[in-house]
Amino acid sequence: MSDYPELMTRYLPEGIRLVDGGVTAAPGFRAGSVSCGVKSSDGTPDLAMLVADRPCVTVGTFTTSRTPSHTVILCKEHLAATGGVAQAVVVNSGNANCANGERGMRDARHMAELAAQKLGLEPQQVMVSSTGIIGRPLPMEKITAGISDVQLADDGGPDFAQGIITTDTRVKTIAVEFEVGGVTARLGGSTKGAGMIYPNMATMLCYMTTSVAADGAWLQAQLRDAVSDSFNMVCVDGDMSTNDTALLFANGAAGNEPLREGTPGAATFAAALRHVTRYLAREIARDGEGATRLMVVRVTGAANDADARKAARAITASPLWQCAVAGGDPNWGRVMAALGASGAEMDVDRIAISLGDVNIVRDGVAASYDQAAAKRAVSGAEVLVSADLGAGPYEATAWGCDLTHGYIDENTTYTR
Amino acid sequence: MSDYPELMTRYLPEGIRLVDGGVTAAPGFRAGSVSCGVKSSDGTPDLAMLVADRPCVTVGTFTTSRTPSHTVILCKEHLAATGGVAQAVVVNSGNANCANGERGMRDARHMAELAAQKLGLEPQQVMVSSTGIIGRPLPMEKITAGISDVQLADDGGPDFAQGIITTDTRVKTIAVEFEVGGVTARLGGSTKGAGMIYPNMATMLCYMTTSVAADGAWLQAQLRDAVSDSFNMVCVDGDMSTNDTALLFANGAAGNEPLREGTPGAATFAAALRHVTRYLAREIARDGEGATRLMVVRVTGAANDADARKAARAITASPLWQCAVAGGDPNWGRVMAALGASGAEMDVDRIAISLGDVNIVRDGVAASYDQAAAKRAVSGAEVLVSADLGAGPYEATAWGCDLTHGYIDENTTYTR
Repeated sequence: MSDYPELMTRYLPEGIRLVDGGVTAAPGFRAGSVSCGVKSSDGTPDLAMLVADRPCVTVGTFTTSRTPSHTVILCKEHLAATGGVAQAVVVNSGNANCANGERGMRDARHMAELAAQKLGLEPQQVMVSSTGIIGRPLPMEKITAGISDVQLADDGGPDFAQGIITTDTRVKTIAVEFEVGGVTARLGGSTKGAGMIYPNMATMLCYMTTSVAADGAWLQAQLRDAVSDSFNMVCVDGDMSTNDTALLFANGAAGNEPLREGTPGAATFAAALRHVTRYLAREIARDGEGATRLMVVRVTGAANDADARKAARAITASPLWQCAVAGGDPNWGRVMAALGASGAEMDVDRIAISLGDVNIVRDGVAASYDQAAAKRAVSGAEVLVSADLGAGPYEATAWGCDLTHGYIDENTTYTR
Repeated sequence: MSDYPELMTRYLPEGIRLVDGGVTAAPGFRAGSVSCGVKSSDGTPDLAMLVADRPCVTVGTFTTSRTPSHTVILCKEHLAATGGVAQAVVVNSGNANCANGERGMRDARHMAELAAQKLGLEPQQVMVSSTGIIGRPLPMEKITAGISDVQLADDGGPDFAQGIITTDTRVKTIAVEFEVGGVTARLGGSTKGAGMIYPNMATMLCYMTTSVAADGAWLQAQLRDAVSDSFNMVCVDGDMSTNDTALLFANGAAGNEPLREGTPGAATFAAALRHVTRYLAREIARDGEGATRLMVVRVTGAANDADARKAARAITASPLWQCAVAGGDPNWGRVMAALGASGAEMDVDRIAISLGDVNIVRDGVAASYDQAAAKRAVSGAEVLVSADLGAGPYEATAWGCDLTHGYIDENTTYTR
């Protein structure tokens, strides 16, 4: 994480400061993780838990898959039943608890019950997530032992971040501090990513905690918008997961007037939420399975918002361009083909493409550019692709990564 | 091509016989190819030409990309101007003539003019195709020399097939003979595929010739339907090309009553066209860049035709499942996730999935199956995936391949 501070600060909005602690940065949250042997028997943490000191306004976004995991179904059920109030989440990695039929639903419920017992809560106040292999029943003895054993601490954020990852090579976590209506508040989050990463919300789990008080409907809208511009703009491989979940718990410990449209501090909180989600989204892309380069795609000149997103995502999702980036090959024809195939409206005679700050295509045709500079632009740890569709004022940013042997090695024998 | 006869005959409809000759199997067509140095300087054929003995009813389908190559634009223009009559096609590989602005259109026109001069035709009677790297001007001196040098012969079909391929490891060609209205007729075709293969019609070029007489509108409808069930159901990597083209020339040499709905022999010709296009589509998938296994996906139980296609294509297009197939890993959770993400309507409690003839999922949950048999089912040269969505009577077949290091090696340094 040597470039963590640089990446974090580069886009840090005014009035927002970085702090340590991840999901326990905000006061009133405890967290932790433990190894219970679901993912492997080598002691890797694979069960994580987070609890608040009081009921939280809780909002979430979930996979749009038609075959969602049983845990996703349960989270939605609990949030609907409580009107968006929860106090804890329990997460296991190594097993997705998806496609397990009635037993899968029963096991998901049982996980919530076990966590609720431990924490002295109602089961409906507990969110449940699972990630890992699909179609194998949860080993409930191990889960039961894990829930019983996990230690929760005020400074357990980093442990929690470690407990939710699967094939990720590093934890992804951030926390910020800011003022809302004259009081200081915090927002922290952790995510897991790696493979099966494509909008909408691909095998990614994200948990965020904040000490602000907020109106539930307003908070849900903020989360939806932030996810739409962050996690839903990340692509590792074009695969969408059955388990994608983003949850945000707001315990109100800051004592501010509950945030809603126009409340003092609402805009600051929204900016903080965008920073946290976009940072975590970038980190997911940068740590894609086998990735050696982060790809940042900026599309401008689109006729509408949907087209801007579509075009930006198409570039990140092109395996041919992902391979070119892996090889440090400025083969911009792949970008042009991806744009054309995206379905977005464009004026072919006005298309412009740049790699880094090297303008490669102008008015739809190859510009005269320095080949060595173009090659350098796609050979670093971060590759910026800018494309102007020449069709309007809309723009979007998407994040992706290159496609390498590492991705294939990771996924050829996943279940062995 | 050791398995050519087996693959060809397995699904051969009654009354349709295999013959040799590819695009020159039908009487009245000459073809050939030559090396002119566009693709490489090692003597590989890279310019191919096909000519008929008389004006042909000519129909085509083309890429839906918003950035089509200049040759695609020109083909459409010529077919519109002549009302669907053409007599020849000239194809170069190594350069896509795409994103070259006004110069690109001028060069495409010039290719048609040069071929027309050589053959004594009007330029509008000549179709033009290019495939290869995007955004580099066509080397017109080489193209000019190639058009001048190429030798056309009655038995030049195999040479033509060789001249149109790029990263393909083998030619893809077929020809059949059948009776229409009491006379014998033939249909032959050749295609190129390899990378950037995804609906709709991905860097694939396909040229077909037939001696039947046919009504143009009827023939166009037959081609559209056949392409929809063949080339548009092939996926190598989810990338759609700027240059996709399928052309069918009918010279009427068989002397049959022109085919249209209900004409004697119309159904036989339609069956022959489906056989030819589906065979070529399978061959494209089997020869995907880096592919070691052909994947055949059969989706049944869909609520409608679009859902059946969407679901089948989603499985072929899942990089995670493609990797699992590469590793001979029956990780069916990837299939389940791809189905869920496809957007197709499904009854999750009725989903069934089989690998080969091993039933893996029944009623939405893992069936008890023989793990060794499941592994064998995904470890051969051809992997059959069957999925029943439990939502209706519609079905579709798609073809794909596994994802290996070979694909990445092919595409990391494509332009070097």
